[in-house]
Amino acid sequence: MTDTQSADTVQRTAAEILGETKKLVDPEIERRLEELHPMMRGIARYHFGWQDAAGRPDPHGSGGKALRPALAVLGARTVGAAGDEPAVIDAAVAVELIHNFSLLHDDIMDGDRTRRHRPTAWTVFGENQTLLAGCALQTLAFEVLAEQSPAAVPSLGAMVQELIAGQSEDLQLEGNESATVDQCLRMEQGKTASLLSASASLGAQAYGADAEQVRLLAEYGHHLGMAFQLVDDMLGIWGETDTTGKPVAADLAARKRSAPVVAALTAGTADSERLRAVLARPEELSPADLILAADLVEHAGGRSWTRERADLHTREALARLDRLAPPPSALADLAEVTRFLLSRTW
Amino acid sequence: MTDTQSADTVQRTAAEILGETKKLVDPEIERRLEELHPMMRGIARYHFGWQDAAGRPDPHGSGGKALRPALAVLGARTVGAAGDEPAVIDAAVAVELIHNFSLLHDDIMDGDRTRRHRPTAWTVFGENQTLLAGCALQTLAFEVLAEQSPAAVPSLGAMVQELIAGQSEDLQLEGNESATVDQCLRMEQGKTASLLSASASLGAQAYGADAEQVRLLAEYGHHLGMAFQLVDDMLGIWGETDTTGKPVAADLAARKRSAPVVAALTAGTADSERLRAVLARPEELSPADLILAADLVEHAGGRSWTRERADLHTREALARLDRLAPPPSALADLAEVTRFLLSRTW
Repeated sequence: MTDTQSADTVQRTAAEILGETKKLVDPEIERRLEELHPMMRGIARYHFGWQDAAGRPDPHGSGGKALRPALAVLGARTVGAAGDEPAVIDAAVAVELIHNFSLLHDDIMDGDRTRRHRPTAWTVFGENQTLLAGCALQTLAFEVLAEQSPAAVPSLGAMVQELIAGQSEDLQLEGNESATVDQCLRMEQGKTASLLSASASLGAQAYGADAEQVRLLAEYGHHLGMAFQLVDDMLGIWGETDTTGKPVAADLAARKRSAPVVAALTAGTADSERLRAVLARPEELSPADLILAADLVEHAGGRSWTRERADLHTREALARLDRLAPPPSALADLAEVTRFLLSRTW
Repeated sequence: MTDTQSADTVQRTAAEILGETKKLVDPEIERRLEELHPMMRGIARYHFGWQDAAGRPDPHGSGGKALRPALAVLGARTVGAAGDEPAVIDAAVAVELIHNFSLLHDDIMDGDRTRRHRPTAWTVFGENQTLLAGCALQTLAFEVLAEQSPAAVPSLGAMVQELIAGQSEDLQLEGNESATVDQCLRMEQGKTASLLSASASLGAQAYGADAEQVRLLAEYGHHLGMAFQLVDDMLGIWGETDTTGKPVAADLAARKRSAPVVAALTAGTADSERLRAVLARPEELSPADLILAADLVEHAGGRSWTRERADLHTREALARLDRLAPPPSALADLAEVTRFLLSRTW
């Protein structure tokens, strides 16, 4: 603490901010899950890390980071809410439910077997029941939001459509030899930025913010989401297993056309062609192949391109915060979460 | 035409009533599908029978019967609506979208390759894209309903949760040796009756009917739905392929624990045990096995039990219509659709 700070203005860490939102939102999600069919509830509770496959409390379950609910709460605080108003909490719950709907489904479609250091739900409960559990969370999101903020339901619906479109494009891009950077970025907009955009704006909308404030928060969330996804793409190639909870170079193993890969492939360098040849191999890539491919993405400029693009979106996001001119404590928390998200190594 | 009827009171046939609803609702569904991602839209249009796999108009596509939208429109007419009010049409569109969301997903989960005499969508577009298309229709239903009838969103949400729970139980019952009739009926309530209940009541709710009217229509739809599903169960065993569009005894081939099967298995007859032995065979059942199994279900009393139960629900449904005391033309149309549904051979 410096001389100019008093105890009550000490900047909270991102972990503290996210942790506080989790304490607000998790009990409400748990309460709402009680409405579901027992099978759907059990799968959801496993997925959230609250119980193990047999239904016992799970000491290894960490759940998610509650990033999206935190954005909903912080967005509402940006426009004057305390952040714990029931309508704001419901908006936070709704975006977290949609996020987890998409995780449950995407893990099946992508064949991912590990999430948050645990077996994915579909590997435990089967694909069909897990699909249904995902749909149950999606539906619950609409039910929760409609209760106090029926006027915000179209915003949630539009976001879910973008999310679905993004996942569809993601699947189409997989292994696509001629994917362009534009296609890739459009996919990332749908898959990630749409949800963060809705998260940042929906709490404020539920609180009754004016249209201009909602728009600025949606734009903030969009740019934050793009930056976040680009960082995630880098972690999908260069992240450490013990921090990401995923296998090494998982995105390369899956032949995903993530931004660094597409940027490298379309860079027109000799390494671009070498990378193309490695990714075109029909067989599963060996660990050595994966390390080679990751190096080729980097040497062809894919890593620096992605880093620069992420920085651009970060600046755009922060510019929206400036224009919103939020109360100092809300601004400080939002800036800290933004900074934390974009420098994460986990 | 008898002496006591004049031209303007001639009872319309169910085909005419359903056809008229289709003409009201289909263009609106087509218009709303334009909002979706092109891939989702294409899958939905194929599934609705409006285009073939390549996107050309499909001369073989018949689409659905528009039963659920017809119930929504007729339910609204029961309480005084003309039936073509935008809010009523939106409710009709919403329930039809939910119905088709469930068909797209269920066909994947059940491995069904044929629907409405055409290859199911997932066999053409793949499981993943078809799952996404189903989710897109589900989301669209909430978007459509929320525009003019936000207060009805919780009803739609509750129904979708029941639908999901019913499909979950259906999957759990498959091949379950100890399934009870109660489990089976609960599954059928969730899987079918919940949607018909919401269909019959949602149009009226959107039109502004009072709570008692909405409740009676929901109960009418519930009983109609139970009867409808029990008839469907019989068609799943004894229906003709060229009328059902499904293979012979498809439900037996899939070892489905439908009502006639469970009633037969739990009847305690010698044929119950013979049926159990046939269904327990590990290998795929031959056509001869399927005919034997169908006969055993019948001889063990499963067919007559189901028929009687369907008749009971039919009487309960009609009793609700009596209490609603709808305008004569609405009553006539609703009674005709009810009669038609429960005597269908298609």
